[in-house]
Amino acid sequence: MKRYSLGIDFGTNSMRLLLVNISNGRQVIEIVENYPSGKDGVIVDSRNPHLARQNPADYIYCLSKAGQKLGRRMKLKGIKAEDVIGIGIDTTGSTPIPVDENLVPLSFKKEFRNNKNAMAWLWKDHTSSDEAEEITALARKIRPEYLTKIGGVYSSEWFFSKILHLARTDPKVFQASASFVELCDYIPALLTGCSTPSNVLRSICAAGHKAMYHDNWGGLPDKEFLESLDTRFKGLREKLYDKAYPAGIKAGGLTKYWAKKLGLLEGTPVSVGAFDAHMGAVGAGIKENVLVKIMGTSTCDIMIFPKDKNLPDIPGLCGIVPDSVVPGFIGLEAGQSAVGDIFYWFLKTFLPEKRKDVFAYYTRLARNIKPGSSGLVALDWHNGNRTVLVDQKLTGLIAGLTLSTKPEEVYRALMEATGFGARVIIERLNEYGVRVDSIVACGGLPEKNSLLMQIYADITGKEFKIAFSKQTCALGAAMFGAVAAGKEKSGFENVQQIQEKICRFKPQTYKPVKENHLVYEKIYHNYKKLHDMFGIPDYTGNLYSVMKDMLKIQSDAVR
Amino acid sequence: MKRYSLGIDFGTNSMRLLLVNISNGRQVIEIVENYPSGKDGVIVDSRNPHLARQNPADYIYCLSKAGQKLGRRMKLKGIKAEDVIGIGIDTTGSTPIPVDENLVPLSFKKEFRNNKNAMAWLWKDHTSSDEAEEITALARKIRPEYLTKIGGVYSSEWFFSKILHLARTDPKVFQASASFVELCDYIPALLTGCSTPSNVLRSICAAGHKAMYHDNWGGLPDKEFLESLDTRFKGLREKLYDKAYPAGIKAGGLTKYWAKKLGLLEGTPVSVGAFDAHMGAVGAGIKENVLVKIMGTSTCDIMIFPKDKNLPDIPGLCGIVPDSVVPGFIGLEAGQSAVGDIFYWFLKTFLPEKRKDVFAYYTRLARNIKPGSSGLVALDWHNGNRTVLVDQKLTGLIAGLTLSTKPEEVYRALMEATGFGARVIIERLNEYGVRVDSIVACGGLPEKNSLLMQIYADITGKEFKIAFSKQTCALGAAMFGAVAAGKEKSGFENVQQIQEKICRFKPQTYKPVKENHLVYEKIYHNYKKLHDMFGIPDYTGNLYSVMKDMLKIQSDAVR
Repeated sequence: MKRYSLGIDFGTNSMRLLLVNISNGRQVIEIVENYPSGKDGVIVDSRNPHLARQNPADYIYCLSKAGQKLGRRMKLKGIKAEDVIGIGIDTTGSTPIPVDENLVPLSFKKEFRNNKNAMAWLWKDHTSSDEAEEITALARKIRPEYLTKIGGVYSSEWFFSKILHLARTDPKVFQASASFVELCDYIPALLTGCSTPSNVLRSICAAGHKAMYHDNWGGLPDKEFLESLDTRFKGLREKLYDKAYPAGIKAGGLTKYWAKKLGLLEGTPVSVGAFDAHMGAVGAGIKENVLVKIMGTSTCDIMIFPKDKNLPDIPGLCGIVPDSVVPGFIGLEAGQSAVGDIFYWFLKTFLPEKRKDVFAYYTRLARNIKPGSSGLVALDWHNGNRTVLVDQKLTGLIAGLTLSTKPEEVYRALMEATGFGARVIIERLNEYGVRVDSIVACGGLPEKNSLLMQIYADITGKEFKIAFSKQTCALGAAMFGAVAAGKEKSGFENVQQIQEKICRFKPQTYKPVKENHLVYEKIYHNYKKLHDMFGIPDYTGNLYSVMKDMLKIQSDAVR
Repeated sequence: MKRYSLGIDFGTNSMRLLLVNISNGRQVIEIVENYPSGKDGVIVDSRNPHLARQNPADYIYCLSKAGQKLGRRMKLKGIKAEDVIGIGIDTTGSTPIPVDENLVPLSFKKEFRNNKNAMAWLWKDHTSSDEAEEITALARKIRPEYLTKIGGVYSSEWFFSKILHLARTDPKVFQASASFVELCDYIPALLTGCSTPSNVLRSICAAGHKAMYHDNWGGLPDKEFLESLDTRFKGLREKLYDKAYPAGIKAGGLTKYWAKKLGLLEGTPVSVGAFDAHMGAVGAGIKENVLVKIMGTSTCDIMIFPKDKNLPDIPGLCGIVPDSVVPGFIGLEAGQSAVGDIFYWFLKTFLPEKRKDVFAYYTRLARNIKPGSSGLVALDWHNGNRTVLVDQKLTGLIAGLTLSTKPEEVYRALMEATGFGARVIIERLNEYGVRVDSIVACGGLPEKNSLLMQIYADITGKEFKIAFSKQTCALGAAMFGAVAAGKEKSGFENVQQIQEKICRFKPQTYKPVKENHLVYEKIYHNYKKLHDMFGIPDYTGNLYSVMKDMLKIQSDAVR
């Protein structure tokens, strides 16, 4: 008997259905729908570049449209509704939606139509940076423990920053909200017919990584803390939730309405949701001592660590949350604020008309540059530093420039800089007992840029594998859908067993070349000096050797 | 009665005759001849990028050719040979020529024809960097006083480095040399018929700035020092000279042969020569408390200071030589290793196909950028740092980069970086009692780039004037030609009186804009931090504030 599970992935610009044969991992049907609203699905504001919202109607519209295609495609392939045993959901986040007492997004109501504040506050909305600073400051003062699991700084991209900004800038919407629901919680609730905010099974992934939820202090931040932030927050705590759940727990059964839309059976188990990167890590084959790097415009780095072993708080890591990735393990989240974005910026801004395909052209040139031979060393902080410095107010830097420096050398130095940034994260993890043996990369970049992968392997001295699936997020979601269906239906005890069965890697892996690694060891030493000098408050030291040393490395390399 | 003087300027790619009416400064005839040999007059070597020589035959060929044109043009203008009262010469340097006992360049001899080592070693020949380091090291050890007037480091571009390299790499040429004569000494000798190396009147400008000549230790470095450098230098000291002379001293009278070639009178007084930058400073109107900046691919910065006042050794200044610029004053030389070169590198390498006239286009864009608004700060060390760090092994750096950084912002930041570099020099001079009240800029850049001039004025807080003459070097040479003619013929006591009469500035000067100056004051603080941290050995400090501060300056600027 063939068993399928459906992964539903809500991304930044589009949503995707992925039907997976969970006996063998084959991805049999994939349907993508672009959000119709805004600019590529993102509602922006010409007067405020920080604003990024989504129209919740897009989610329902795309889900319906994709669902119709799913039914037709299943029929063509002879897949029966009863062969689909479960549904899993992953979404962007933190993407909270203000809802009414019936779990209806406020933007669906006449009085808030076209009000961007009543829509979903997309993860990359940065309107709430002042509020984030206030939350960090207050926590430092009265609840320092809240910051221990999130790297010491609460972000403007996160749940409470956004709600506080809403409370202050649009009190009507704030007051009309019966609750605030993350997109990854809203979709399972929608599919299972949950119509009361208090009954929504909230994702521990969203709660722990973005809302300071932790068992150590009894779940979410307490009433006193929230109301000390702003008197407008009086009563907010009661509108939220006390407990959060890991993915794989059944949120409910598919409603008749959505069963029809999707061509599936009513009652099909729907898993509790989670964020895309976390489910993507599962789809990529995360396990103990394997780091998953989801690499695109920025990176998200995920590790897991057994809950029964002792894990200290790791400074600079943006999330340490039990059960957030694989139940039974502590999920660890780190990340680099810009990776692909830096290459795009450099090549498109500085060399726009040089060639038609500027990426392929310069990647080809950069491939022929020997490590160290440019004499360049750069800091990859063009969008701040997420891990381990947790500081948005840092900027990019490049040293070692001469009148002979070529664009492809700068491009390669930028690639290397992100590789050094990746290494800092790995070293921080190692330092605190989370050993990284190898890395699985997924996302858009690894497939497009094999040079980058080789550079990363050479810099870190670790093997880089590439996840076989291009859709690890939706694949991970489907895996959790199967877990939610239970062992009897799926044949698997837990998500690890499914991973064992279906997670694969591309045949080509990237192993460190010893000679290159030795050169990068030396350059990393200089990167780290710059990193610490520019990035750590009150750090005192000497930098005179950096330019000298880079020139020495260069002359050794070109010899 | 009209009195004229002829300035002869030997540059890197061409030579120039400039006939000046010294009663009113009018430049009545200008003739340019390009050197026929090599690449734009420079003999290079495809196997050795550091090599840069010149064919001495080019000097004679161009002088003859230009001389014929001069005669014709004088006739057309009704200028009589007897109206030309003197001749002055400026050349590049250190550009030593190996000569035989009759002052014939060795490259004119059959056995050394086509031998690049027997030609003129052009100022920018960098084959001798190892030798320069050895000379510095030995002087530090046994003759530290030799380094006190040249900023502490002997350069690979200078006289003894080149001769030592010659002695080691081409002993035949070295041994065949009866002496080594700077181009600025060779030309006056040639024109006045001097045919014995020991009779050549050597320029104190060349001797003091490039050959460690100073009265404090009795002229050139002593025999023991030279022979300690290399046993091959045995007997070298005797081939050189004991005394050097300032420009304005008469080297001799024009020979019959050259009088005919140039259409002038036999016996016309010829001045002792000097380097282009130094005579250029005079032509630009240098006087006490006025800094002359000759700005092109790099800069040469010249000041004068009364010999009768007490001047301490100024660390990091590459030359402190009595009488080298204006007799009676100590000539001070500083410089920036790359200025125009940096802009050329950036615009031509990174944005080559963007527009036809990439300079005009990006200068227009950069003009519209408010000081501080890019958040960028750069170090202008793409070709090392000549003053005040005297260190070739430094490199360019740029900090403050973000995903929004635009090319024109980088371009402007590079312009600003050279402005900050200029300010460091001014501050060093001030610190040691050489007060800079205003600046006269000359050379190619100031005329082409008014934005750069305004940035410099805003950064330094000083007025920048632009020398009226485009040919300040040849003009300065002509002025010294008139001095060599004597008061009776010229009507002037000394070169200052001629300056008073004929040096003028362009009507447009650049005055600091207070608002911009205040912003640059803040950015300079960060530049200086980077400067000291990366440039000074054993310098210890804290850099964390730099990126923060630049972001703050940026947000204030765009507000």
